[in-house]
Amino acid sequence: MANDKKMVEEITSMDVDFAKWYTDVVKKAELCDYSSVKGFVILRPYGYAIWENIQHIVDKKLKATGHENVAMPMFIPESLLQKEKDHVEGFAPEVAWITHGGTEELTERMCVRPTSETLFCDHYSNIIKSYRDLPKLYNQWCSVVRWEKTTRPFLRTREFFWQEGHTMHETAQEAQDETIDILNLYAGFCENELAIPVIKGQKTDKEKFAGAEATYTIEAMMHDGKALQSGTTHYFGDGFSKAFDVVFQNRENKPQYPHETSWGISTRLVGAIIMTHGDNNGLVLPPAIAPIQVVVIPVAQHKPGVIEKATELQQRLAQKYRAKIDISDNSPGWKFAEYEMKGVPLRVEIGPKDMEKNQCVIVRRDNREKVFVPLDQLEETVEKLLEAVRQGLYQKALENREKRTFTAAAMDEMVQLANEKSGFIKAMWCGDEACELKLKESAGVSSRCIPFEQEQISNVCVCCGKPAKKMVYWGKAY
Amino acid sequence: MANDKKMVEEITSMDVDFAKWYTDVVKKAELCDYSSVKGFVILRPYGYAIWENIQHIVDKKLKATGHENVAMPMFIPESLLQKEKDHVEGFAPEVAWITHGGTEELTERMCVRPTSETLFCDHYSNIIKSYRDLPKLYNQWCSVVRWEKTTRPFLRTREFFWQEGHTMHETAQEAQDETIDILNLYAGFCENELAIPVIKGQKTDKEKFAGAEATYTIEAMMHDGKALQSGTTHYFGDGFSKAFDVVFQNRENKPQYPHETSWGISTRLVGAIIMTHGDNNGLVLPPAIAPIQVVVIPVAQHKPGVIEKATELQQRLAQKYRAKIDISDNSPGWKFAEYEMKGVPLRVEIGPKDMEKNQCVIVRRDNREKVFVPLDQLEETVEKLLEAVRQGLYQKALENREKRTFTAAAMDEMVQLANEKSGFIKAMWCGDEACELKLKESAGVSSRCIPFEQEQISNVCVCCGKPAKKMVYWGKAY
Repeated sequence: MANDKKMVEEITSMDVDFAKWYTDVVKKAELCDYSSVKGFVILRPYGYAIWENIQHIVDKKLKATGHENVAMPMFIPESLLQKEKDHVEGFAPEVAWITHGGTEELTERMCVRPTSETLFCDHYSNIIKSYRDLPKLYNQWCSVVRWEKTTRPFLRTREFFWQEGHTMHETAQEAQDETIDILNLYAGFCENELAIPVIKGQKTDKEKFAGAEATYTIEAMMHDGKALQSGTTHYFGDGFSKAFDVVFQNRENKPQYPHETSWGISTRLVGAIIMTHGDNNGLVLPPAIAPIQVVVIPVAQHKPGVIEKATELQQRLAQKYRAKIDISDNSPGWKFAEYEMKGVPLRVEIGPKDMEKNQCVIVRRDNREKVFVPLDQLEETVEKLLEAVRQGLYQKALENREKRTFTAAAMDEMVQLANEKSGFIKAMWCGDEACELKLKESAGVSSRCIPFEQEQISNVCVCCGKPAKKMVYWGKAY
Repeated sequence: MANDKKMVEEITSMDVDFAKWYTDVVKKAELCDYSSVKGFVILRPYGYAIWENIQHIVDKKLKATGHENVAMPMFIPESLLQKEKDHVEGFAPEVAWITHGGTEELTERMCVRPTSETLFCDHYSNIIKSYRDLPKLYNQWCSVVRWEKTTRPFLRTREFFWQEGHTMHETAQEAQDETIDILNLYAGFCENELAIPVIKGQKTDKEKFAGAEATYTIEAMMHDGKALQSGTTHYFGDGFSKAFDVVFQNRENKPQYPHETSWGISTRLVGAIIMTHGDNNGLVLPPAIAPIQVVVIPVAQHKPGVIEKATELQQRLAQKYRAKIDISDNSPGWKFAEYEMKGVPLRVEIGPKDMEKNQCVIVRRDNREKVFVPLDQLEETVEKLLEAVRQGLYQKALENREKRTFTAAAMDEMVQLANEKSGFIKAMWCGDEACELKLKESAGVSSRCIPFEQEQISNVCVCCGKPAKKMVYWGKAY
C-alpha cells in the first residue's frame, strides 16, 4: 500500500497544473527522457513502441492507397533550400547548419532537413519525364530538425519523428484530390484508431505552410481547452515544379509542370493521445496503439496454481492481443497503479477465489468498470471490452470538445469567451489578415481552421463588422 | 525485341568491369539514385523496399530475443563524443559538424551521430541504478553520417541506414555471450534469409572498433573475390561505463560498472546481396527480402480471357506472397528482361496455349529453369520453387566462396596468390600488428578475421616465421 500511494502522489493533478501533469505523465510512464542535447529528447521503449504502432497502421494505409516509401538524404545544401522563395523564408531561420565534414570546411554549408520538399523536387526533376511517370506517390519516415526556442516532449522538440509524403500529379485537380484524400485518411486514423475526434478544415493564408497554395489541417481539442494541430496536407500547385525545373511531356506531347502535394503526421500525435485521454492516474491508451493491450495480474500469487493459471490466461490472450503478465514481487496494488499509469486499456486479475469460481476480473482503464468473467468467455469479453474502451474514449473526448466549443457573434463576446473559457470559439471572418492579427492581440486566439463543415453564425466578421466570408474555428493552440 | 535488346545492352558485363556492372545494376534496377548532396544517395522505392524487408525480419528476431527499440537524438555535443579516448580518436576525423542553430552560433558544436555509444551511455547513466535494471537491451533503427572520401551506393556512403544495438549487462560473461548470440543471429539471417554464406570470427586488434575490447564479424565473399564485412558485434568491457559514470548497485549492494556491447548491420547488406547473387542480367534477389517474389506476365494478353486468367493467378498468389502482375503495353520479352533485371525470384507466364492445357509456365530467376505447372498446383509449386531458389542461391554462393578460398603456408605463396587470384587466403599469424602491416604492404591484403573454426595450416606465422597463434582469413575487402 505504501508503494501505491507513492505512485499516485508522484503525478501532479491536471486541475492543479496541467503542464506539470503532462510532463509528469511523460516521465513516469517512461515515454521520454531528457538528453544531454538541449531541446532533444530520448524516446524510451514504451514511448517508441507507441510510435511504432502508429507507424505500422499508417504505413499500411498509405501503401494500400498506392504510396511508396523512399529515403532522401538528411542534409540539404543551402543553394537547394533557397530555390523556392517562400519556402526558404519560412525555414531558414530555424535550421541547424553543417559547416564542416571531418576536418575540412565545406565549400557550401548544408542544413539538416527541416522538411524535404526541396530534396524530393530535386529528385523528381531527374526521374519524371513523361505523363506515364505520374503520379509519383512517395513517402518517407524519418526525423527532421527545427531549431525551436522552447521545447516540450512530443509537442515541440528540436528533432521530431514523422512521415512526409511528397507527390507529383498530372493535373491540379488530381493533386488537390490527393490533399483531401490524405486529410481524410489522417482524420479516419485519429478518430478510429486513436479515438480522437478532429475538425477538418483549411488553414488561412496566414497560417499555411511556407510555399504552399493551400494547407489543410485536422485540429483536435485537448483536455485543457487548447487545440492541437494533428496533421496537415499541402497543395503547392506547380510552384515548386517551376523552381526545381520538374517538367514532363504531357498527353499532347508538350512540356508541362506537374502539380505537387506534401503532407505529414508526427510524434505530436503521442502528445495528442496523452492530452486527450489521460487522467490523474496517468496515461490512458487507445487499444489500437497500446504497446500492452491487456495486462494479467495474479492476486495472492504465492498460493498454489495462481501463477500457472494467470500465465495460461496471458498465453491465451497473446494469441490475438499484445498481452503481458506481471509476476514480479511487487504487490498487486502497486502493479494496478503501475499499469494504470502506463495506460494499459484492460487489466485481468485472477486469484485463488476467482479460480474456485472459474472466473477472472477484468477492469477497464478508461472508466474503471469491473466485470467478473467466466474463464471460457475470456477472449470474446476482452474483444468486446477493447472495443468498448475505444468507443468510450472517443465519446468522452467528443463530449470534452463539445463542452469546450463556443460561438461568438461579436467582438466583446469573443474577448469574454477567450478570457473566461478555454476551447474552440466559432466566429465569422471577413477573410482579412488584419482581423486575424487583431483577434490575436485582443483575445489571444489564432485561427485554427476554416472548417469544411460551415455554419452561418451571422453575416458579418466578428472583428471588423464587414461582410463575412467564412466561419472559422479560433483558439489557443500548442 | 528492340526493347529487350536495349535493356540487356545497358548493363556492363561483370567480367568486363565489375565495378561498372555493380553501379549499372544499382541504377537500372532502380535501387538508388544520386542526389545533389555529394556522397549521399537516394534510396528509391525498390531499393528501400529491400531494406524494409530486411528490417522487418531482423526487428522481429531482435524483439523475440528481448531487445527493445528506442530513439536517441541525432546530434552529439563535442564534449560527450570526447568522453571515451579511443572512440573519439576513431570517429572525430570523419564526422559532420553543426555549428549554428537557426541564426545563432552554438556555444558548443555538435556532430551528427557517426554511431551512438556516447548517447546510449549518457542515457544509461541516468536510468541504470540497480542490478534489477539489468540487462538493458536497447536497439535503434536510424541513419548515421561518416564523412567518407570515396563513396559507392550501399557500400560506402556519407549517410547510411542501420540498426545499432547497445546493451548493458551485470557481468562480463553475460555481455560477451550477447556479442556471440547476436553474431549468430546475424549469421543465421545472412545464411537463411539472404542465402549468403558467412565466416564468423574475431577481428584483430588493428581492425577492431574504436573503443572496443573485442570485435566480432561475419565476412562474406563477393563474386569478384573481394570480402564484405556484413555485420559486427563489439564487446566493450566496462570502459565506456567508467567514462560515462554508469554505475549500479550489485547483488552485494556495492557500486559496480556494468559491461557493455554494441552491434549493427546496415544497408551494406543490400550491396552484399547484389554482389553475391547478381549476374549479367541484373539483380537476383533471395525470396525472403524480394519486394516482388513472383511476377505474373500474360502472354498474348490481347487474346480473350488472358488478362483475366493472369489476374486470377496473381490474386491467388497474393494471398501468401508478394505477387505482382504486369499488364502494361510492353512486350512480354521486354517484361521478362525488366523483371530479370529487378531480380524477381519467379516469373509466371500464361497465354492462350497454356490456358488450353490448364497450365502455366514458371521460370526461376537464378538458373532460368522453366517448368510447366498444372494450374491447380500453382501455390504448392511456387512454394517449392521459392525454397529451391533460396537453396540454389546459397549453394552457388558457397561454391564461389570455396573456389575462391586459398591456403598459404609461406610468404611467397601468399604474395603470389594475392597477385594472381582473388578471394580469401587462409594463413597462420603470430599475432603481431607488424606482420599485418607487412602483409598489407607486400600482398595488399588485410586480416578479415580470426575465424571461430580454426585450422592448423602450419606452426609458424606466414609473414615472420615466428610461432603462430591463430589461423586468419586474409583478403581484399570493400
